[in-house]
Amino acid sequence: MNTFGRNFKITTFGESHGVAIGVVIDGCPAGIKLAEEDIQPFLDRRRPGTSPLTSPRQETDRIEILSGIFEGITTGMPIAMIVRNRDTRPGDYDALKDVFRPGHADFTYQEKYGIRDHRGGGRSSGRETVGRVAAGAVAMKFLARHGISISGTILEVHGKSTHSEIEQEILAAKECGDSVGGIVEIVASGSPAGLGDPVFGKLDALVAGAMMGIGAVKGVEIGDGFAVAQKCGSENNDPMTADGFASNHAGGILGGISTGQDIVVRIAVKPTPSIAKVQKTRDRNGNVVDISVVGRHDPCIVPRIVPVAEAMLALVLVDCLLEQAKYR
Amino acid sequence: MNTFGRNFKITTFGESHGVAIGVVIDGCPAGIKLAEEDIQPFLDRRRPGTSPLTSPRQETDRIEILSGIFEGITTGMPIAMIVRNRDTRPGDYDALKDVFRPGHADFTYQEKYGIRDHRGGGRSSGRETVGRVAAGAVAMKFLARHGISISGTILEVHGKSTHSEIEQEILAAKECGDSVGGIVEIVASGSPAGLGDPVFGKLDALVAGAMMGIGAVKGVEIGDGFAVAQKCGSENNDPMTADGFASNHAGGILGGISTGQDIVVRIAVKPTPSIAKVQKTRDRNGNVVDISVVGRHDPCIVPRIVPVAEAMLALVLVDCLLEQAKYR
Amino acid sequence: MNTFGRNFKITTFGESHGVAIGVVIDGCPAGIKLAEEDIQPFLDRRRPGTSPLTSPRQETDRIEILSGIFEGITTGMPIAMIVRNRDTRPGDYDALKDVFRPGHADFTYQEKYGIRDHRGGGRSSGRETVGRVAAGAVAMKFLARHGISISGTILEVHGKSTHSEIEQEILAAKECGDSVGGIVEIVASGSPAGLGDPVFGKLDALVAGAMMGIGAVKGVEIGDGFAVAQKCGSENNDPMTADGFASNHAGGILGGISTGQDIVVRIAVKPTPSIAKVQKTRDRNGNVVDISVVGRHDPCIVPRIVPVAEAMLALVLVDCLLEQAKYR
Amino acid sequence: MNTFGRNFKITTFGESHGVAIGVVIDGCPAGIKLAEEDIQPFLDRRRPGTSPLTSPRQETDRIEILSGIFEGITTGMPIAMIVRNRDTRPGDYDALKDVFRPGHADFTYQEKYGIRDHRGGGRSSGRETVGRVAAGAVAMKFLARHGISISGTILEVHGKSTHSEIEQEILAAKECGDSVGGIVEIVASGSPAGLGDPVFGKLDALVAGAMMGIGAVKGVEIGDGFAVAQKCGSENNDPMTADGFASNHAGGILGGISTGQDIVVRIAVKPTPSIAKVQKTRDRNGNVVDISVVGRHDPCIVPRIVPVAEAMLALVLVDCLLEQAKYR
Repeated sequence: MNTFGRNFKITTFGESHGVAIGVVIDGCPAGIKLAEEDIQPFLDRRRPGTSPLTSPRQETDRIEILSGIFEGITTGMPIAMIVRNRDTRPGDYDALKDVFRPGHADFTYQEKYGIRDHRGGGRSSGRETVGRVAAGAVAMKFLARHGISISGTILEVHGKSTHSEIEQEILAAKECGDSVGGIVEIVASGSPAGLGDPVFGKLDALVAGAMMGIGAVKGVEIGDGFAVAQKCGSENNDPMTADGFASNHAGGILGGISTGQDIVVRIAVKPTPSIAKVQKTRDRNGNVVDISVVGRHDPCIVPRIVPVAEAMLALVLVDCLLEQAKYR
Repeated sequence: MNTFGRNFKITTFGESHGVAIGVVIDGCPAGIKLAEEDIQPFLDRRRPGTSPLTSPRQETDRIEILSGIFEGITTGMPIAMIVRNRDTRPGDYDALKDVFRPGHADFTYQEKYGIRDHRGGGRSSGRETVGRVAAGAVAMKFLARHGISISGTILEVHGKSTHSEIEQEILAAKECGDSVGGIVEIVASGSPAGLGDPVFGKLDALVAGAMMGIGAVKGVEIGDGFAVAQKCGSENNDPMTADGFASNHAGGILGGISTGQDIVVRIAVKPTPSIAKVQKTRDRNGNVVDISVVGRHDPCIVPRIVPVAEAMLALVLVDCLLEQAKYR
Repeated sequence: MNTFGRNFKITTFGESHGVAIGVVIDGCPAGIKLAEEDIQPFLDRRRPGTSPLTSPRQETDRIEILSGIFEGITTGMPIAMIVRNRDTRPGDYDALKDVFRPGHADFTYQEKYGIRDHRGGGRSSGRETVGRVAAGAVAMKFLARHGISISGTILEVHGKSTHSEIEQEILAAKECGDSVGGIVEIVASGSPAGLGDPVFGKLDALVAGAMMGIGAVKGVEIGDGFAVAQKCGSENNDPMTADGFASNHAGGILGGISTGQDIVVRIAVKPTPSIAKVQKTRDRNGNVVDISVVGRHDPCIVPRIVPVAEAMLALVLVDCLLEQAKYR
Repeated sequence: MNTFGRNFKITTFGESHGVAIGVVIDGCPAGIKLAEEDIQPFLDRRRPGTSPLTSPRQETDRIEILSGIFEGITTGMPIAMIVRNRDTRPGDYDALKDVFRPGHADFTYQEKYGIRDHRGGGRSSGRETVGRVAAGAVAMKFLARHGISISGTILEVHGKSTHSEIEQEILAAKECGDSVGGIVEIVASGSPAGLGDPVFGKLDALVAGAMMGIGAVKGVEIGDGFAVAQKCGSENNDPMTADGFASNHAGGILGGISTGQDIVVRIAVKPTPSIAKVQKTRDRNGNVVDISVVGRHDPCIVPRIVPVAEAMLALVLVDCLLEQAKYR
């Protein structure tokens, strides 16, 4: 299943070291001004090779729009976009051909499909998110028309929460051939009340599925999240006053439907599984082997996940806005 | 959207104080022995009125199967099941007709639909989960054939974790007209490797969506969950040895696909929003009013959520098992 | 797959001689006045036992609405409706338990599922359409708001086209233990331009799928249909004048999208396969046997298919109207 | 809606005179040998410029596979394929910018979207079918593994049925600036019994939707099709003998499920609406104008529709085969 969304549907394709990465958007309304320049800045935020904190893989990630635009305006037709892979080094992965990297999808893909593209994880690579970010950029143009904006921030990395400490933690991890995890918060402002469906299309359920569907995410919470477990109802309920809600413990969603307040989501990001430190694993023949994953990896994926998480939230909200149109 | 699942699809219907609550399962394989007695015990676990810890509403929740069974065996046709509501007291809610209960879906349903069934929350009531639990019971019969079992436990309530402390917390909350939240863990054992799709049908994404789609759930984590944010890759990766994985930080899912280990999920459950303690809120005319929600409510929904969360995990796993069949 | 529609989704359930037949509508907009009296007349048109031309099975087909209505108005929540089967005679079918009736789904259900409910065809019975007609009645209420009306007529039966000839043909077929087929035309008036999606959601494709999905239908044509094969473009194109289109060879659909003219559909209905005349067939053990299907059957299903075909067209149009709302 | 299928899902994109035409297949099983050479011959059959009977537009239609293949084998990941448009002449259409060509989607697209790519019909062009044919070629590789083959033939053009008469009719139409329609039959051999779902996923309903979803198709029939309207049940039922079915009036489908016999489908194809003969139409300002559509058009689309119809049938059958896997 490589399609996401019910109304603003995106289908991503492509492997880390294949020909190209891309996405097709089906269901984008007609009449939106759209050009490659609208999308490129979002890709630039997620691309590697831009700082010592990220993978040195050199990808310019130039987006090409293949369809769906006429005279600079969306026509309602599918928008296909591709990025050609440039700095592929499939040979880097020859040694890993038959070995299951710990914490990666190598073992599970092999079990599921009986075949896998081992070159940089193939489709399970974070590189797949190029398509999501490109589609998210289109979604954001639509959201902007409705006065909705989305912004993500790093709350903590390896337990630290200031910019300089976080940078230190990442460089220290890199230094010793290890990696670190963290927490990201994404907030959508300006959303109208009424988005999301009761029961199985709850806005929080859609958001949780979207976020947990980003590789490396192991937890999702809305509003006060796990902290609610230690609270009383009288503390956790958000009273209403003449000015609206007096607080936002709910994170902008009640009964699965947006309240009009900020939508607040936090995600837990695991430490990158690719580390130089030696670990035990198995190869396809069942032999236990030592593995040290060297190559071009991010010692911490948290910063690069921010634009991806923003994109996913944007996609969910556009989808709900279009869904909502049916019932007005 | 009242349908859940791609292959084993369930559609639930019904309101808390309406005629009946029910579910239609579309996609249940033929050839499974199934009778009302297989389903009733699951409904009995979730129904109210059984202890001082739960709502005193008296519902026998007798399930009736309307279709899809022939001579005690599923035929592959849709299985429709209903429970007639018995102990409805719609009059109890007259006073709340125009008032938005804090922490409930009253405000958001009104905003979304311009109309709402105010009687006990209508469709946003926890009573809707009767249909999920009934469908989950059918799913569990199918899972049992594949050697998969599911079990949920209460990890903590209001910060306490032993059975007697939890009971005390709930009774104390009830006493003072308040409510408490908690954490539930659900584990699926016996799952094969290979369940779940890459990218947008990741098993963990499906599970997160399913769990966050249960009313009152504000957080979901898989395996080590939010704890991964403070860890290094060398601690968090699960090494493989001759006996398989040496640990299960991943919670049984890698790259969105099951590893064959236990699938471990935790959910944060908020304190029941219906409390007798006086709170500020608004009515439909925008007036700020005091509200005290009296009636038949659970001071803590955590125990009754356990069978619902088990059902949702069962539904996800059956769906993935059927999905997987296509690719073998 | 027992669900139809993308926005106004209906799921039907139930077998001919089971407990009940029913339908759940998911996606019906809130705010529509709806009661059982709105639906009953549609069911009365399709029910058997009302004339010598139809099956003598006595079913009152009383509809019961279980959910989704509050104070006489739809709430946007699922509308579940059931009809209890009354005049079931499962014993009538004992002799057919192991024999495949020619022209019926007996053989194919057995091949597909390895089990089948042989009582009156189980789910493959025309009785399944009770749910479609009930849902169609709700759809028509919504269409009426948009000024759209739907009407079906019998064009011919066994080659005859006047009312009295048709009646004669049917009674003659009944007399000699045989059955006859015919052609029905369904027209939707008042539809706006713009319904239907390009490429795979074409209005004509949706209509064709809907019509061919009615049991006994073997052909579908839109506008001039098969006659276009013998025409030139200059004859078949519909010119436009100051008053709009000058003709309607296209049947109200161009490029898969409605033009605003009448939508014109014709369907070919096969003769009822249940006939008293002796035919050759096989039983489950592979033996060739003679079969004479006696019991309560329609000698011609054409008249009773009219309300079903109207319902299906109504369902497609509502679905497209809601879909269209997303893009305005 | 630019996606077709439930299991073997294809999403097509691209406009007639845009950058590229393409398709993404999601759900293709892993392990199928696949290269561009497997697909090219199918595209060559549908491409223009190959005979005096077709449009002189010169397109080599070179397919490029962007993803989903590893070492010549499908991996289960999405297969994206594109064809760059070469011989575009958008300027040819400048005169038609504001005029609605009769019989085309110009008027309806404008009504639906408020904007349209007028260059050669944009997305409503038959050129969109490049993506379908490419995906169909992949589907056929899968079908071949299951012993299923598909073949289409022209039954008649403008009432004529021999090859030389058909050629004459087409050339005559071309000569006088007109066009002609016809009938195509597509047969699938080797299909197992059991494909298709009861009720709303009937095989014939899926086929009818697929066929009517091809531009220019105005009618679809299965087996004896419209001829059944004039028949008795005793003539139309297919008896079974020791050797299986004694006839195939049903066209290989009973109750919506394949019987294992040949699946026989016929489609009515309208005369190409683009003709040089002068017709009346309107422009966007409502003025009635004369139009003569000159340029590079097919005087008869029937021959080029054959590979498209074959592809659509292949896509339906693969989808049903994968669906069926869930229930075995």
